[in-house]
Amino acid sequence: MSSTAAYSKYQYFLTSSPAPYVAHVQINRPTKLNAFKEAMWLELRSLFQQLSSDPDVRAVVLSGAGDKAFTAGLDVTEASQNGLLTPESNLDGARKAAKLRRHIQEFQECISAVEKCEKPVIAVMHGISIGLAIDIACCADVRLCAADTRFAVKEVDIGLAADIGTLARLPKVVGSFSWVKDIALSARDFSSEEALRVGFVSAVHESKDKAVEAAVKMAAFIGGKSPVAVQGTKEVLNHSRDHAVEDNLRYVGVWNAAALQTKDVQAALLSVMQKRKPTFEKL
Amino acid sequence: MSSTAAYSKYQYFLTSSPAPYVAHVQINRPTKLNAFKEAMWLELRSLFQQLSSDPDVRAVVLSGAGDKAFTAGLDVTEASQNGLLTPESNLDGARKAAKLRRHIQEFQECISAVEKCEKPVIAVMHGISIGLAIDIACCADVRLCAADTRFAVKEVDIGLAADIGTLARLPKVVGSFSWVKDIALSARDFSSEEALRVGFVSAVHESKDKAVEAAVKMAAFIGGKSPVAVQGTKEVLNHSRDHAVEDNLRYVGVWNAAALQTKDVQAALLSVMQKRKPTFEKL
Amino acid sequence: MSSTAAYSKYQYFLTSSPAPYVAHVQINRPTKLNAFKEAMWLELRSLFQQLSSDPDVRAVVLSGAGDKAFTAGLDVTEASQNGLLTPESNLDGARKAAKLRRHIQEFQECISAVEKCEKPVIAVMHGISIGLAIDIACCADVRLCAADTRFAVKEVDIGLAADIGTLARLPKVVGSFSWVKDIALSARDFSSEEALRVGFVSAVHESKDKAVEAAVKMAAFIGGKSPVAVQGTKEVLNHSRDHAVEDNLRYVGVWNAAALQTKDVQAALLSVMQKRKPTFEKL
Amino acid sequence: MSSTAAYSKYQYFLTSSPAPYVAHVQINRPTKLNAFKEAMWLELRSLFQQLSSDPDVRAVVLSGAGDKAFTAGLDVTEASQNGLLTPESNLDGARKAAKLRRHIQEFQECISAVEKCEKPVIAVMHGISIGLAIDIACCADVRLCAADTRFAVKEVDIGLAADIGTLARLPKVVGSFSWVKDIALSARDFSSEEALRVGFVSAVHESKDKAVEAAVKMAAFIGGKSPVAVQGTKEVLNHSRDHAVEDNLRYVGVWNAAALQTKDVQAALLSVMQKRKPTFEKL
Amino acid sequence: MSSTAAYSKYQYFLTSSPAPYVAHVQINRPTKLNAFKEAMWLELRSLFQQLSSDPDVRAVVLSGAGDKAFTAGLDVTEASQNGLLTPESNLDGARKAAKLRRHIQEFQECISAVEKCEKPVIAVMHGISIGLAIDIACCADVRLCAADTRFAVKEVDIGLAADIGTLARLPKVVGSFSWVKDIALSARDFSSEEALRVGFVSAVHESKDKAVEAAVKMAAFIGGKSPVAVQGTKEVLNHSRDHAVEDNLRYVGVWNAAALQTKDVQAALLSVMQKRKPTFEKL
Amino acid sequence: MSSTAAYSKYQYFLTSSPAPYVAHVQINRPTKLNAFKEAMWLELRSLFQQLSSDPDVRAVVLSGAGDKAFTAGLDVTEASQNGLLTPESNLDGARKAAKLRRHIQEFQECISAVEKCEKPVIAVMHGISIGLAIDIACCADVRLCAADTRFAVKEVDIGLAADIGTLARLPKVVGSFSWVKDIALSARDFSSEEALRVGFVSAVHESKDKAVEAAVKMAAFIGGKSPVAVQGTKEVLNHSRDHAVEDNLRYVGVWNAAALQTKDVQAALLSVMQKRKPTFEKL
Repeated sequence: MSSTAAYSKYQYFLTSSPAPYVAHVQINRPTKLNAFKEAMWLELRSLFQQLSSDPDVRAVVLSGAGDKAFTAGLDVTEASQNGLLTPESNLDGARKAAKLRRHIQEFQECISAVEKCEKPVIAVMHGISIGLAIDIACCADVRLCAADTRFAVKEVDIGLAADIGTLARLPKVVGSFSWVKDIALSARDFSSEEALRVGFVSAVHESKDKAVEAAVKMAAFIGGKSPVAVQGTKEVLNHSRDHAVEDNLRYVGVWNAAALQTKDVQAALLSVMQKRKPTFEKL
Repeated sequence: MSSTAAYSKYQYFLTSSPAPYVAHVQINRPTKLNAFKEAMWLELRSLFQQLSSDPDVRAVVLSGAGDKAFTAGLDVTEASQNGLLTPESNLDGARKAAKLRRHIQEFQECISAVEKCEKPVIAVMHGISIGLAIDIACCADVRLCAADTRFAVKEVDIGLAADIGTLARLPKVVGSFSWVKDIALSARDFSSEEALRVGFVSAVHESKDKAVEAAVKMAAFIGGKSPVAVQGTKEVLNHSRDHAVEDNLRYVGVWNAAALQTKDVQAALLSVMQKRKPTFEKL
Repeated sequence: MSSTAAYSKYQYFLTSSPAPYVAHVQINRPTKLNAFKEAMWLELRSLFQQLSSDPDVRAVVLSGAGDKAFTAGLDVTEASQNGLLTPESNLDGARKAAKLRRHIQEFQECISAVEKCEKPVIAVMHGISIGLAIDIACCADVRLCAADTRFAVKEVDIGLAADIGTLARLPKVVGSFSWVKDIALSARDFSSEEALRVGFVSAVHESKDKAVEAAVKMAAFIGGKSPVAVQGTKEVLNHSRDHAVEDNLRYVGVWNAAALQTKDVQAALLSVMQKRKPTFEKL
Repeated sequence: MSSTAAYSKYQYFLTSSPAPYVAHVQINRPTKLNAFKEAMWLELRSLFQQLSSDPDVRAVVLSGAGDKAFTAGLDVTEASQNGLLTPESNLDGARKAAKLRRHIQEFQECISAVEKCEKPVIAVMHGISIGLAIDIACCADVRLCAADTRFAVKEVDIGLAADIGTLARLPKVVGSFSWVKDIALSARDFSSEEALRVGFVSAVHESKDKAVEAAVKMAAFIGGKSPVAVQGTKEVLNHSRDHAVEDNLRYVGVWNAAALQTKDVQAALLSVMQKRKPTFEKL
Repeated sequence: MSSTAAYSKYQYFLTSSPAPYVAHVQINRPTKLNAFKEAMWLELRSLFQQLSSDPDVRAVVLSGAGDKAFTAGLDVTEASQNGLLTPESNLDGARKAAKLRRHIQEFQECISAVEKCEKPVIAVMHGISIGLAIDIACCADVRLCAADTRFAVKEVDIGLAADIGTLARLPKVVGSFSWVKDIALSARDFSSEEALRVGFVSAVHESKDKAVEAAVKMAAFIGGKSPVAVQGTKEVLNHSRDHAVEDNLRYVGVWNAAALQTKDVQAALLSVMQKRKPTFEKL
Repeated sequence: MSSTAAYSKYQYFLTSSPAPYVAHVQINRPTKLNAFKEAMWLELRSLFQQLSSDPDVRAVVLSGAGDKAFTAGLDVTEASQNGLLTPESNLDGARKAAKLRRHIQEFQECISAVEKCEKPVIAVMHGISIGLAIDIACCADVRLCAADTRFAVKEVDIGLAADIGTLARLPKVVGSFSWVKDIALSARDFSSEEALRVGFVSAVHESKDKAVEAAVKMAAFIGGKSPVAVQGTKEVLNHSRDHAVEDNLRYVGVWNAAALQTKDVQAALLSVMQKRKPTFEKL
């Protein structure tokens, strides 16, 4: 990471560098179960935009501060006050809708910054991980979790259809549409074991600490590889999720026409022959 | 349900209300393994359109009458007689095709009525559940089954590519395309255990009765929640299945700009604080 | 198969007919772990185009010759020499890109010939199955493997984003996007057990021989069914993967308007009644 | 037309048969400038569904009864009373939205029946042709008009974004997006001359009578051709409007695989050689 | 406009309010033919984001300052210096590409802000209007021009494919793909008359002053209408350009379910009856 | 052109080089009005693939040999004999369809080779230009014509829906869908004047010779520009036709990340300053 100091300006996020080229971001409002208020999602956007273009970062780990929660989701109290859940009553229905729509779109864009970050993001879920926790996690590339994680797509329990990304992305993140409907329509809790079985997380670890440790190790492993190859793979896979195969082949062909002009291929091939770890220029 | 009487007009479907806001629909032709003839799919469409706009219904359970079958699929004898499988021979190939295409499209629309129903539909599969059973189940939101269920995408065994929805929806319902190809190209049976493993069903219960019981319980649970939230979630998830993430975010933003103007949010938040069950107005 | 002789012209592929209507293709460069050079992928295209239109073939099994590998992927040495990995240095960046893009597109088209083959293709993976092995396997309809298979999406380890189809197809082949990102970003090995769990393969067999045996049996089973039904099912499922449900229903309706005009339906229904194996005309 | 009597049941539409295989439909509420109330669009759907499957109809002409108007659009007075423009005030915003959305969707489906009619529809616009007139005309295949036609996309003048099809279809009907925005954002009138210049209509005739005459002549001309060819052309062109070229080629290939099995080709070729008018079987 | 002062902070854009609810923006670097450097497109984004959410603005007119040019496009000298056209030479091809791609994307986003502005934008083209002028104009809703305008898609003349939006949008803005290819492949000039004939502009005026006057009049006319209706129409038309008709109908149905809950409909209907100009609340 | 000799192998096409970097291809079967038989479309594919990768060709002009016709379309006599219009009668409907579909697809691919040619193609239409003439012309980038050209989408007159590309591409080539439906449903002739008005051709010239002269001049003009810029523009515009604006911006951003690494930009800028004609390296 260019320097930890560059990330000290954020009030609600702690950023450290536990390994070369790895940034560890912690949602940092543990006294409120890391619940999000508006200032936090605005910060989240800035933070991930900064990580995206920081040449000293090649992989990001995202977890919650404290033992209790990755995040308990939206801070409902604050949301009721700032108008997200309670638009001004003197407006007509159309004007309320316009106001709400702008608010939702900005909120969505802030969370999408995690997906748009050019570097792989590994989310470590633990403790309470409900509501917005799922929206955010769906934007990460890989999801790990602690055994005690309590997951839920909680929105219907407060009278809402989840709209900050869960409903848009979850059907493309896991394989069973039956399961997605089940947990989204009922808002019921699901366990780490169930999350693993359906493919929502890639692995379960016995505790939050072990999960973070595994995530940092994975991030460091990825951080040791060609950033041209890794970041291209992330971009192309995200494109693939949303397009037909023919379009994907066309896109990756154009992408690699430039990407293959990297010195990293020679560096990688040489290091294989010389049985040593390659080094790659910054990106 | 507005009244059971309102649903007594259907000859091939039994409808009851085992819990508040829950409708239980049974395919009712048990002497023929609930096999479908044309009159039945026409009725199925009317029935689900009625359920869709009945404000007293918030969730639907769909099972087969009798112990032997959810449904054995198309009534092949009747289909041979009414021209679906045997178009008039004095027409040329193009005119036969036009006739068949119109017939298929109407058939598809009837089955799609299950998917278009605004209320969540929980299918309970049991016994023989082949051919059209899979087409119908793919339109449900959640699939449960009894342990003894015998599933098969049976069409290739009678010389057909399944065309009433299975091939269109199944690749989006489960995660493994390899498995979809396997069972669709071979028409082989698969078990409840296999159905669970690949995510085609969300849970297996030891008997049909237990599965129906679980489905009614799930339906009642969902029926107790905000219908604005639940029906919005269903609609948006179905949109997500078929669109790219950017489109989904835009759509849900517009959807929720109206949906957030519900009193259900306040009702839900208040009931959480007061630790009591909320009630919601009809929709 | 029309005759084994018709397939003897290929230098790098062995083709035999272990059962009626079944072709078994082996990648045949075992001394180099079946690694691919350009001549091989050009041959692969010709071979699968021939299989696609051979009326005596109704299902194809694809494996690697020898015990060590399905394929170790791209022959990196050859690729370095022929310019795929090392474009001429006297060209400017745009001209290098044009050259690389054309090269990639032809390479993609050759591998896509496996997907475009109108007959079902069952890939049997075994031993080393890395890099291009995954690209090819993603084009097959069903994937089986031996217990000892060592899989990896290996490209990032040589500084590349995989571009011959893995990134385009894998997110649509398995259910967990988290898992796809995990193995594609890290290039780590995964086992047959993991491949089964995520749905990449449909079954694991104890050895290569057992897996090939199972694949041939499955191919023969499929080969005994109506080719109109089987080939229509393959085509329609591939269409479904890439289109929304409404489009899929429209497409299959038009497809079946012609396909239902087959004598195979009568042949199949009659054979069911007469409890004998139906025979179907060539296609 | 099978018989004029079969169409006498509609209260708001007059249907006659001015030429073989041609149906002429007139919107018939001239005392109210042919303005639409709900019963009318419900009838419009039934009528065009009937025309779509009537083998004696091969082309349809649609005009307004009387000299003053094709249609002045929505009957605003009735719409205010039946709740389309004024939802019940005791509902919350979300429930009002649900009610309005269902209402709009049914309205859209009724108008779309003109587009879904399998036979070509030629709209003849004349006099006042505003608001809903444009929605309906966009569903026709060909648009002709009288010189005195007064066109307008009128909705913004009553506080609405047009939602019954104009905004969805008009950008695909004419070439200049600048012009579409101009007339839709300003609700200004445009003339027949302007309509011709931008391609909204194919021809301008000096009077309504001349325009109807030309339309009937065109319909009769089309009605004399192979219905397999004509109806296939309509269907495929509508598909092309909404899909990419690759998809269109695939679709038309499958379509014609059945359509080419018609005797009409031989009939047409023979009649060319024999210099006589061919006759084609019903469809 | 909330106040002209609020827009005085922009260095390269002059903003005035020539009529109620109308903002007139002038590209203001006349000594350099209004050629764009990086600081200008960054300002353009901020400015149009501000206009988009300013409740006192309901329509925007965009022209160039001075008599000579709307804009001569990219300031090539500056672009050569800041790296857009000349990436650092010590990077490998892939890293140069990454750098360029990020740069292009930001540039695209800045120009797209004109399209994303929720209020209609009327571009007035005059004098030299080449290169970037076309990219910007394609983002406007309506295009007017002076008779002396000299248009060109100029990029191929400096060795570039236009990438800031012209190639993406122009085929959807005008009707003739032949013409688009002609002017984009040859970079030849085209006249105001030709621009009108192909539908690129909606009208030609004899001078820049007359064109601005007409644009302000159109903007004031639109500004007098319901902002709910006008802004909804813009949003829905932009959606229509990029989606199939079925999707568009679904989207507008959801949009209007909220938009119809406006008081503007009653205000508009009442004012029609009372023959006076309606007033609408801010949005 | 690398050498005229390299193109002398084609039996049905004459290729010459009337200007530097320009190839002029003539359909050469004038005694039969340049009607196409199967051998011709197979040659057309080979020829345009060769032109596509010939670095000495930068633009292509396509016309018909002789004075009478660009092409009269399909050679119906030959098509009746080779099975395209008359499939073997002993096959069932599904098998006939499979055979026809494969035949159509190959035919489509041959014609699409004109579109896929990386170099701009200018079609010069003259005399009889019906049926397949329109399919081919829709694949060209720019269309010019002689005043005497007689155009028609002729297929419905022989009982067919046009399926070799006209229906797929024409709605995207011209602006008025009403006009496309008119001429495709009626198969009526249209004139050069009408073709110009709707934007099907870019210009009309008084004679075939003048039109060819203008086309060669345009080709030479384009041939003098950067091939990186020109070929990128063609590719990106074809992508734009078939994708939404957001997708197009993403694609062109990736494309230009490589394309901007060309020396052609410097060459072009320098030549502007030095007021001389730039030269560009081959591509």
